[in-house]
Amino acid sequence: MRSSVAAGSRLDGQYSRVTHPPEPINRQELVSLAEIRAAAERIRGVALRTPLLPFGDDAWIKPESLQPTGSFKIRGAYNALAGLSAERRAAGVVTHSSGNHAQAVARAARLLGMRAVVVMPNGAPQVKVAGVRADGAEIVFVGPANDERVARAHEIAERDGMELVPSADDRRVICGQGTCGLEIAEQLAELNIRPPLNVLVPVGLGGLAAGIATAVKALLPGSTLLGVEPALAADTRASLEAGKPVRWPAEEVGRTMADGLRAESPAPLPFVHLQRLLDGVLTVAEEDIAQAVRVAASAVRLVLEPSGAVTLAALLVHRDQLTDGPTVVVASGGNVDRQRLAELLATG
Amino acid sequence: MRSSVAAGSRLDGQYSRVTHPPEPINRQELVSLAEIRAAAERIRGVALRTPLLPFGDDAWIKPESLQPTGSFKIRGAYNALAGLSAERRAAGVVTHSSGNHAQAVARAARLLGMRAVVVMPNGAPQVKVAGVRADGAEIVFVGPANDERVARAHEIAERDGMELVPSADDRRVICGQGTCGLEIAEQLAELNIRPPLNVLVPVGLGGLAAGIATAVKALLPGSTLLGVEPALAADTRASLEAGKPVRWPAEEVGRTMADGLRAESPAPLPFVHLQRLLDGVLTVAEEDIAQAVRVAASAVRLVLEPSGAVTLAALLVHRDQLTDGPTVVVASGGNVDRQRLAELLATG
Repeated sequence: MRSSVAAGSRLDGQYSRVTHPPEPINRQELVSLAEIRAAAERIRGVALRTPLLPFGDDAWIKPESLQPTGSFKIRGAYNALAGLSAERRAAGVVTHSSGNHAQAVARAARLLGMRAVVVMPNGAPQVKVAGVRADGAEIVFVGPANDERVARAHEIAERDGMELVPSADDRRVICGQGTCGLEIAEQLAELNIRPPLNVLVPVGLGGLAAGIATAVKALLPGSTLLGVEPALAADTRASLEAGKPVRWPAEEVGRTMADGLRAESPAPLPFVHLQRLLDGVLTVAEEDIAQAVRVAASAVRLVLEPSGAVTLAALLVHRDQLTDGPTVVVASGGNVDRQRLAELLATG
Repeated sequence: MRSSVAAGSRLDGQYSRVTHPPEPINRQELVSLAEIRAAAERIRGVALRTPLLPFGDDAWIKPESLQPTGSFKIRGAYNALAGLSAERRAAGVVTHSSGNHAQAVARAARLLGMRAVVVMPNGAPQVKVAGVRADGAEIVFVGPANDERVARAHEIAERDGMELVPSADDRRVICGQGTCGLEIAEQLAELNIRPPLNVLVPVGLGGLAAGIATAVKALLPGSTLLGVEPALAADTRASLEAGKPVRWPAEEVGRTMADGLRAESPAPLPFVHLQRLLDGVLTVAEEDIAQAVRVAASAVRLVLEPSGAVTLAALLVHRDQLTDGPTVVVASGGNVDRQRLAELLATG
């Protein structure tokens, strides 16, 4: 399957690919720039202010793969846990995750002296499982379906009175991820770069894209915000077209090598943000993702996991579909099993 | 061959491994902190202020692999070229290099609109050759011996009246590389970390170690500065023991996989700095270098070339020989052929 843009949604070369719904009944539902700024204060010294790495003459990579635990997820997880009362901290935290959020919650919990339980799919990469274990969290393995993870985590939270911190459908988490967008806006200002420009963000459950879009649209109005999904897991593109979250079966999204983007549908709270803030969704083929992993290693000396490389893939294959002006590519994570990485690098 | 510290030079667990000579006749021979600060101004916006990435609970990695052209070399090369008069810029630049300095000179020359010729060894990694070509420099290939490269570059410089910018034996270059040490000192201050602490720096011709040692010893007195060499190319350790530069044959140093550290002896100007500022030299075995490349990819999501991974190798195998306190590991570069990297990642 080749890469493609949202079917039927690219009109006259414009980037109004997403049908923006009328104003929400309750605008306060959306996270605010002020909340994201508060999150930035909370995570200072724990999450890294990742640099913008030049890529060619008109693009930059924001390497969230360099974060502690290897992905942007530490931003949201730490923001959520650090904001808890002493009493809630003492109760411990439970979460469900395909791997990167699990690692981030485990690390944040360790830093804050909290007990952590994570519900993960059986097929999670070993490097992600090892990361969770290294930070001392307990793991409960379930099947690949997101629903099963969510249900199990809720069950544990209720049984043990633990705090549930979902990986995306959570205001605190979205605000934490939004700090990445805050940094992008600040760093572009330092480089004296103004819109028009493009920001490409991977979309799984949508928490990162929702947070970044909120910050970037507020601070750099006129920017084009594009989500990127594997063509094999384009549930968000389909949902935005339908105007409501639609579900792709776990067996279907499970075919993409981008294990962090196997969400079956966008999470509800991120989705209302994406509907209002995203300009479009680009999709990329598996072979393009693999090629982006290779380019990242050779040209920018970054280890990216497939999920973290979808945006670079989109830049490489969809350059003609971007707005004029420079492009920032959010490379969301770098947790890939070493043997798998070796295979990807040895081919192509 | 297993890793080892400088033979016979580790006395009572102290780190006074280098015999410091009496004060030089002309102290002005050594580069100054003020010159390094001036270099920092000159390279601002071209070289990256690389972050300090946490590695475990008491170490940080300074990933120079993330620099434009993939190594610290852009610091010295750009500092040297940006300081030239308009007339000298118009004459163009020539250099000799095992690869990374060549790429940096090519990039700096392109940014400044200068012609560049680089003399490289036949066996340089393809990724380094491709990097030089991509920036439009002319390449002259010679044999593996450093002397041959130097002679050929001098010949071209004289013939064409071009500016010669050596890769290490040059005050401007040492000052540029020293900006990495300036950043380390600033970043440790931001983290509220003071000596005792260790800084590990790879040593080839010695330019990077000389520059970093100057900045760190001035700003963080009490720090322990350790050079790291492959055991198969420990010419600087031997030179410091002998009290003068000694030469290891090209065939001998050519055995290490760390192609950037195959210098046959330390360059004269860096050497007088190392004699006065370095606390010791650690050596690492080939198998430890390979393991460090693997650890960098898995644990810190960095692509390091073997030369750039020797310091991490030293941290992994020589932890017991470091001073108390945290350690900063300078990871000098990440230009490694993709197939070679795949092989290194697939084994071990």
